[in-house]
Amino acid sequence: MTGEEMHALVERLYPICRSITGDGVRRTLEIVGEHLPLDVHEVPTGTPVLDWAVPKEWNIHDAYIKDPSGRRVVDFRRLNLHVVGYSVPVRGTYTLEELRPRLHTLPDQPGLVPYRTSYYSETWGFCLSQKTLDGLDEGPYEVLIDSTLADGHLTYAEHVVHGDSDEEVLISCHVCHPSLANDNLAGIAVAVALAARLESPRFTYRFVFAPGTIGAITWLARNRDRVGRIRAGLTLACAGDPGPLTYKRSRRGDAGIDRVLAHVLAGRPHTILDFSPYGYDERQYCSPGFDLPVGSLTRTPYAGYPEYHTSGDHPGFVTAEAMTETLEVLREAVRVLERDARYRNLSPYGEPQLGRRGLYGSLGGRSDTQEAQLAMLWVLNQSDGGHSLLDVAERSGLPFDAVAEAAAALEAAGLLEREGS
Amino acid sequence: MTGEEMHALVERLYPICRSITGDGVRRTLEIVGEHLPLDVHEVPTGTPVLDWAVPKEWNIHDAYIKDPSGRRVVDFRRLNLHVVGYSVPVRGTYTLEELRPRLHTLPDQPGLVPYRTSYYSETWGFCLSQKTLDGLDEGPYEVLIDSTLADGHLTYAEHVVHGDSDEEVLISCHVCHPSLANDNLAGIAVAVALAARLESPRFTYRFVFAPGTIGAITWLARNRDRVGRIRAGLTLACAGDPGPLTYKRSRRGDAGIDRVLAHVLAGRPHTILDFSPYGYDERQYCSPGFDLPVGSLTRTPYAGYPEYHTSGDHPGFVTAEAMTETLEVLREAVRVLERDARYRNLSPYGEPQLGRRGLYGSLGGRSDTQEAQLAMLWVLNQSDGGHSLLDVAERSGLPFDAVAEAAAALEAAGLLEREGS
Amino acid sequence: MTGEEMHALVERLYPICRSITGDGVRRTLEIVGEHLPLDVHEVPTGTPVLDWAVPKEWNIHDAYIKDPSGRRVVDFRRLNLHVVGYSVPVRGTYTLEELRPRLHTLPDQPGLVPYRTSYYSETWGFCLSQKTLDGLDEGPYEVLIDSTLADGHLTYAEHVVHGDSDEEVLISCHVCHPSLANDNLAGIAVAVALAARLESPRFTYRFVFAPGTIGAITWLARNRDRVGRIRAGLTLACAGDPGPLTYKRSRRGDAGIDRVLAHVLAGRPHTILDFSPYGYDERQYCSPGFDLPVGSLTRTPYAGYPEYHTSGDHPGFVTAEAMTETLEVLREAVRVLERDARYRNLSPYGEPQLGRRGLYGSLGGRSDTQEAQLAMLWVLNQSDGGHSLLDVAERSGLPFDAVAEAAAALEAAGLLEREGS
Repeated sequence: MTGEEMHALVERLYPICRSITGDGVRRTLEIVGEHLPLDVHEVPTGTPVLDWAVPKEWNIHDAYIKDPSGRRVVDFRRLNLHVVGYSVPVRGTYTLEELRPRLHTLPDQPGLVPYRTSYYSETWGFCLSQKTLDGLDEGPYEVLIDSTLADGHLTYAEHVVHGDSDEEVLISCHVCHPSLANDNLAGIAVAVALAARLESPRFTYRFVFAPGTIGAITWLARNRDRVGRIRAGLTLACAGDPGPLTYKRSRRGDAGIDRVLAHVLAGRPHTILDFSPYGYDERQYCSPGFDLPVGSLTRTPYAGYPEYHTSGDHPGFVTAEAMTETLEVLREAVRVLERDARYRNLSPYGEPQLGRRGLYGSLGGRSDTQEAQLAMLWVLNQSDGGHSLLDVAERSGLPFDAVAEAAAALEAAGLLEREGS
Repeated sequence: MTGEEMHALVERLYPICRSITGDGVRRTLEIVGEHLPLDVHEVPTGTPVLDWAVPKEWNIHDAYIKDPSGRRVVDFRRLNLHVVGYSVPVRGTYTLEELRPRLHTLPDQPGLVPYRTSYYSETWGFCLSQKTLDGLDEGPYEVLIDSTLADGHLTYAEHVVHGDSDEEVLISCHVCHPSLANDNLAGIAVAVALAARLESPRFTYRFVFAPGTIGAITWLARNRDRVGRIRAGLTLACAGDPGPLTYKRSRRGDAGIDRVLAHVLAGRPHTILDFSPYGYDERQYCSPGFDLPVGSLTRTPYAGYPEYHTSGDHPGFVTAEAMTETLEVLREAVRVLERDARYRNLSPYGEPQLGRRGLYGSLGGRSDTQEAQLAMLWVLNQSDGGHSLLDVAERSGLPFDAVAEAAAALEAAGLLEREGS
Repeated sequence: MTGEEMHALVERLYPICRSITGDGVRRTLEIVGEHLPLDVHEVPTGTPVLDWAVPKEWNIHDAYIKDPSGRRVVDFRRLNLHVVGYSVPVRGTYTLEELRPRLHTLPDQPGLVPYRTSYYSETWGFCLSQKTLDGLDEGPYEVLIDSTLADGHLTYAEHVVHGDSDEEVLISCHVCHPSLANDNLAGIAVAVALAARLESPRFTYRFVFAPGTIGAITWLARNRDRVGRIRAGLTLACAGDPGPLTYKRSRRGDAGIDRVLAHVLAGRPHTILDFSPYGYDERQYCSPGFDLPVGSLTRTPYAGYPEYHTSGDHPGFVTAEAMTETLEVLREAVRVLERDARYRNLSPYGEPQLGRRGLYGSLGGRSDTQEAQLAMLWVLNQSDGGHSLLDVAERSGLPFDAVAEAAAALEAAGLLEREGS
């Protein structure tokens, strides 16, 4: 998938009104399913999941605030952020004074509409720009929220690429945000592109597309016996804004995935953050009972850009170039995960004679030793069974790929033996 | 006690001629005893204490150098620093030439009188400003030191606030310096103020007011079976100068007290120094046989200001504001010591649903998550039995108090259980 | 040996055509043997040594390229770098076109002749300056390399200074480079000077003068049962250029020798590099099967200066001053190795009374505590059996010599006891 194709997917998914349950999630997964085979799961309302229960299902058809002339001054059909997520149905006439406590604006960003939800407390409300609010007179206004909140299901999906090993790499994207492009349609698009190119991997790759918090909790509740297989994981979000890449470490701080991401990001502008228990679903994966090796990859992180959770996070805010770079980093990370291993030097006393085996330039005395030859020396020196190729790459400052290629050449020459991983 | 009351105590104690033994210490402890109940200990001369023996008791009534006209050109009654501490009695007539080897000045600070002692080698001498010395003619001078150096006692005192636990927190102040205000009347005054406000603590707090070196050695010799109970301690000195606070770590370097002080100082201008075996009585508490978790809290540290051990260290050099800040830091440190504990999250799989329990704002989507809510997430995430609240505060960057309040709320909601400490 | 004497030794050794075998090495060792008794070892061609075999012996008598007028445009007798090391014999007439693939120059340093070898692949070639090459017309040229490559021996030598202990300190210099002064005649000269002054040491000092790579491999192959005795070691090279000293850590990174060199270099301009598996014979000593505590001391390191492996590395490039400083650092390192030990404070409860033992100034109150007294306090405080004098020097920031002298004084006073090392 090219950057342009990822961007087109973002644009196609953008108008759908998603929430933590309901038809918006289903429609989103249908479109993702055109790219990847998905297992879609429907979990009934009321199902206990860890400390929570699956909530009622919410769907919405229309909503507006009409002024006395009948004009929709706030119109769900033009922007689905206008309704507070999970608003209960309402139909009535209200003065502006009566409406005010239910109207959410961003006074410091007067042109933008905020994104608000009220999943676990039954209420209703509207979001609008401060500018729009400032232009309203006293009313009265005709108000409609044509929604349903009733027993139903929570929907999530999985795409699995089976590898030689049943150890798993988890990529988790939240799919519950309505018309917000970077958060998280860009993450979904990049995950789709990554999944599309995985072929015959060593590890099993599991992509989880689920609503935030309750979706991850539901997945964890239904997969408690599987999580021990997770060797590495990432939550993937905010994958398309123009800011530099950001990796937030897992709770462990030194898990394999933490070292892999630090290595693949090293040559680019980037930020590495320590774990914190807020952000995306790493909150759930890294809760102390699970404590999984799951970090979070974003560009500008959670709540770190002015457009975050506003109408400013539209498809024009994310770029094909940014999504392409995010994808490339993920692919490099996959390459490291796939190829990393510990080796043992079978000729550990002194350097083996590489020249005799055709592995070394024959003309000595030159100082411009090549990267490939340095990589061979590093791999031989460090391969005492205690160091992985990633260890070697970190210590030597050489790119992982150069180190892995050196190891392959040395293994082919009978100088190196792979340790049980 | 207010800053002004602490300063008034410094002024009241200032004129007394203290030394490592004698009536000056006794009078000082009497005045301290007006504020706090004290156990005063008298240990006879010659008593073996660790590698030392309690020295003879020194007292002094008068001392001077009179010029041929009978004028006291150096007068103990005007400033007790003028006599070298522990000077043996002397009465005689000397030329300036004869006196010179016994006259101590500060040529680089010509207006200040130095502080000198000779506890363990019987001699005598005077301290005076270089300016005064430069104004003296050849004499002869009538010299008197009306002192006694004889078998007697070493005096020290303890004030104990009993807590629920017999684990102890030690606060140790030296009380042997004559008219020096910052070193250490300010430390004594702040200790008195701290002790006055401790009520029903968890730990037992022991305040030791003892002469430097030999007093701490004497206390240690008489409490060898008690020192194992010391959970944390501080020597407190130079608590009133206008410089920023300084914490010197214990010999261990990572004792609880070291982490507590680093945390409570973090929001203020301050310096943290590694342990070194000179300074105040942490030298004794941190000798390798004891190796107690005792650090040192000062403002400008030992020997770090030009007025140190000179007549410039008078009550005008210390301020009520500085002592108030020192006291506040000590109180914060006590709060951390008292409240720190390890907890266990009773709902460790995923985040528990805080909203259901009234612990979380109900309107989602906003990015201005509150400190109290962050603190709850951090406490839940880290409470696996292996991390204390101070660990959580350090890792999260949140104030300890916010973390402790979050833990209390979560414990009340049945989500957290305190581990045996 | 003075700096001038070391420089004179460099000048005397400079004209000899050394290689990894042959009479050049033998003649070099004869001259070194005038300064130090040497055990010279001759190992026959074909002897298996670790993964290698001793190569054929190479000797050369003359070599040139003569232009049609009979003038030697490239002349081995003027500079032995002109012949690629280990060139097979050749005699013939060639046009410039035919010769070109066998002519090595440095286009970016057009006035300098490069140093090239071809030890393990039978070929021949010449090295010349780009300037000379640019002045050549098409020829034809008469070409001679009057060399022999035949069964013979590899020659290396050892000088051993026996100590009280059979634990060894290894100093290893490569002796295979022809007319290159800094690399490594300066290293040889400094090693000779160091060896000349070692008297009755605690450890046994072994100086190995051997050709690079194959020499170290040969020595290791013949001393596999001895290497366990090596407590510390250094490869010594590039010891005379004007750049600052550089220490490259052993593979272990925290071996004793690594800490010793960091300490003795601390007061000088210097660089410390992490281990890397290229450079000098530390490559062999630090191969994973041996993993010896051997670092590398140079001034400007391997391949780090423009004159490296060119005719610019002549005796004028190295200075007596630089070699003197290198030697002084080695002597300091030897002093630390020899004197470092762990001690136990026999009076560990509180500070012992130093004044009573004549170890402390008697007049208290002064803030200008002396280095010697600080050193005593540090040694007493840290001597719990777990810290060596070097640990104390590192933690205190005091010079090792001051710490060692304090320990000696305290031991003499019965306050300290040396632990079994």
